[in-house]
Amino acid sequence: MQNSLMNRLAELATVTDTPGALTRLFLSPAHQRAITLISAWMQDAGLETHVDAIGNLVGRTKNSRGKPTLLLGSHIDTVRDAGAYDGNFGVLAAITAVKSLAAELPYAIEIIAFGDEEGSRFPQTLSGSRAIAGSFDPSALDAADKTGTTLRDALLAFGCNPDAISEIARDPAQILAYIELHIEQGPVLEGAKLPVGIVTAINGASRFSVTLTGTAGHAGTIPMAMRRDALAAAAEQILFIQTFATAIPNLVATVGSIAIHPGAPNSVPGRATYSIDIRAPDDSIRAQATAAITGRLKEIAASLDLDITLTQTHDAPATQCAPWLQAQLATAIAAQNLPIFHLPSGAGHDAMAIAALCPVAMLFVRCKGGISHTPEESITAEDADIAVAVLLEFLRNFKKPETP
Amino acid sequence: MQNSLMNRLAELATVTDTPGALTRLFLSPAHQRAITLISAWMQDAGLETHVDAIGNLVGRTKNSRGKPTLLLGSHIDTVRDAGAYDGNFGVLAAITAVKSLAAELPYAIEIIAFGDEEGSRFPQTLSGSRAIAGSFDPSALDAADKTGTTLRDALLAFGCNPDAISEIARDPAQILAYIELHIEQGPVLEGAKLPVGIVTAINGASRFSVTLTGTAGHAGTIPMAMRRDALAAAAEQILFIQTFATAIPNLVATVGSIAIHPGAPNSVPGRATYSIDIRAPDDSIRAQATAAITGRLKEIAASLDLDITLTQTHDAPATQCAPWLQAQLATAIAAQNLPIFHLPSGAGHDAMAIAALCPVAMLFVRCKGGISHTPEESITAEDADIAVAVLLEFLRNFKKPETP
Repeated sequence: MQNSLMNRLAELATVTDTPGALTRLFLSPAHQRAITLISAWMQDAGLETHVDAIGNLVGRTKNSRGKPTLLLGSHIDTVRDAGAYDGNFGVLAAITAVKSLAAELPYAIEIIAFGDEEGSRFPQTLSGSRAIAGSFDPSALDAADKTGTTLRDALLAFGCNPDAISEIARDPAQILAYIELHIEQGPVLEGAKLPVGIVTAINGASRFSVTLTGTAGHAGTIPMAMRRDALAAAAEQILFIQTFATAIPNLVATVGSIAIHPGAPNSVPGRATYSIDIRAPDDSIRAQATAAITGRLKEIAASLDLDITLTQTHDAPATQCAPWLQAQLATAIAAQNLPIFHLPSGAGHDAMAIAALCPVAMLFVRCKGGISHTPEESITAEDADIAVAVLLEFLRNFKKPETP
Repeated sequence: MQNSLMNRLAELATVTDTPGALTRLFLSPAHQRAITLISAWMQDAGLETHVDAIGNLVGRTKNSRGKPTLLLGSHIDTVRDAGAYDGNFGVLAAITAVKSLAAELPYAIEIIAFGDEEGSRFPQTLSGSRAIAGSFDPSALDAADKTGTTLRDALLAFGCNPDAISEIARDPAQILAYIELHIEQGPVLEGAKLPVGIVTAINGASRFSVTLTGTAGHAGTIPMAMRRDALAAAAEQILFIQTFATAIPNLVATVGSIAIHPGAPNSVPGRATYSIDIRAPDDSIRAQATAAITGRLKEIAASLDLDITLTQTHDAPATQCAPWLQAQLATAIAAQNLPIFHLPSGAGHDAMAIAALCPVAMLFVRCKGGISHTPEESITAEDADIAVAVLLEFLRNFKKPETP
């Protein structure tokens, strides 16, 4: 089983828009070829396949019309110069598990290979999963890629009917849940020496732009005590953010960009602008942390006689994974004689959009060094095997509780 | 006296290469017109004038051939979009003081209006004062400005003889000392509520480029405890530099530029590069501070498991002002019923180059807000008057001690 899956992942990784590197953009020729390849594997697993109005490849168990449906899936678009496992692993692992299901199940399964999770081509992202969840915004059809091609025209050229996108939104009454397998894209499972972990939530995120204004001046002529140095103040604030976030479990806060003015070695910086990215699986923890951080930043600025402006540039709530789905994943993991391990997801996934439709859960698979979005992205065949075994066990025993 | 000096400074400030702003580059048409104007004021003060081989305007007391000579002066080139007082004040204040000398002195005076202190046109700087001190490097003649004109060609077009530059180097045996009046370009005198101050030394300077290398990653997926965040480490170091320098009198240390990689709001910074500029009037203090700072930076990097490289990019020793000249300036200040106040110079001046020829001293004049190198640069007529009175008193009583 494992060799087949790893071989398929390697074969799929050769399906690219740019020879020599894996770049497979939404609705590109490589996307078309990937659909052809994966359709054959879906059919080999006993699924009926079609490409829907937004370019998702959908494989459904045969003779299951009208049955309540469990959704599996992930995405098959990639970033530029990508690794082989991000997204693609979740789709091919689901196919492998479904093929291994011998007995007929009391529910239908659909595996969806979403076409646009990375947002590498058009301005918006999650187009495929939003369409399935019924939250696709039709105005996105008019947005264009770098070459000026609109999403509408790209869909038409791909053989899709953009006017039928609203029709692929699923009826929540018919959908049981959505399960997504994905590489972790972080170092936590590797640090815990575990092949798989259960995602508790996809982190919510707040982003701010901070500008500190002091007084620029000559690095030689202004005594230290008379300075209003914007970078020195920013340094105190960045160190506070780092220390504060480190003390709170599952909270991360990152200053990822900074610019100072005038920015010359012989000038005292008069202005500093930097970004803060705050994420947590719990929105109330994120809100408390945001309030504590912004409050302290204002205190530091005031104590140094600097002006500060804080502008929120992004705010997205966390997506909770359903506890009953987490519990059934835990049972499936325990059946492999593996410890149960929970972790939040710091990155976004199709499950965020599908959560508007039905309960969602995610199983993370260890990846080497926590590295993703580069060709060095790597998982082991053994871990892939375990993930498929957990999913298979989960599918065999899956039952939606009466009162979830 | 004061009105005449302030009016002359205002008139000189209209002599520019760029209408609407004061920009007077070395050997430019505005430089030529400034020489014409200042020559007339020098002659009005009883001086004989000439332009030397490097474009300095020199005014010397008449009938003083063979007498030991006291040098006064400053520069008449400017930065781009300059203020009216930087450099120009020292030249015109000296002319005003010399004109007021009624009695004949036992020594000759030369006022030199140096043509290249700012280095705004050619790559090198201090060309005029280095030529007087005998330290001008002839290879600088082949360096070109932005338009491709070499210093040699610019000198020839200005009517100077570049091949005669070595002949204007003065004989140290004939030169008594050099005194330069200059605006402070910093906020210390304003803070002390004093019109003038005696410069103890022109600060020496060390400059470093620091690069910290950690591990870049996704701002969402890497827990705080597993990060090797180069900016967070830089913040701790910058805060240390600020705190350390603030604790040592007359030491200044500035982080004036910083760049991080990848530099995106959703990426943990994997690399940070920043500059450090360390200045002090005492070279041993600067050396001790440099050793302490670089040592601690390495400790911080090691404690955070980051790689660090420290590259020294600049090292210039301090220029000490002669104690006996400082003492005679102090006597002249006391005669005006003003407190004696000493301070280092954080910026460079022609006196740095002239120190290779003879003892030097500088008198600083208060400037508004410590602001310089902008059109907002400002001094009061009252302070200008006091500075001229101090110089006049100094000249009347100047005597080089037998064993200085």
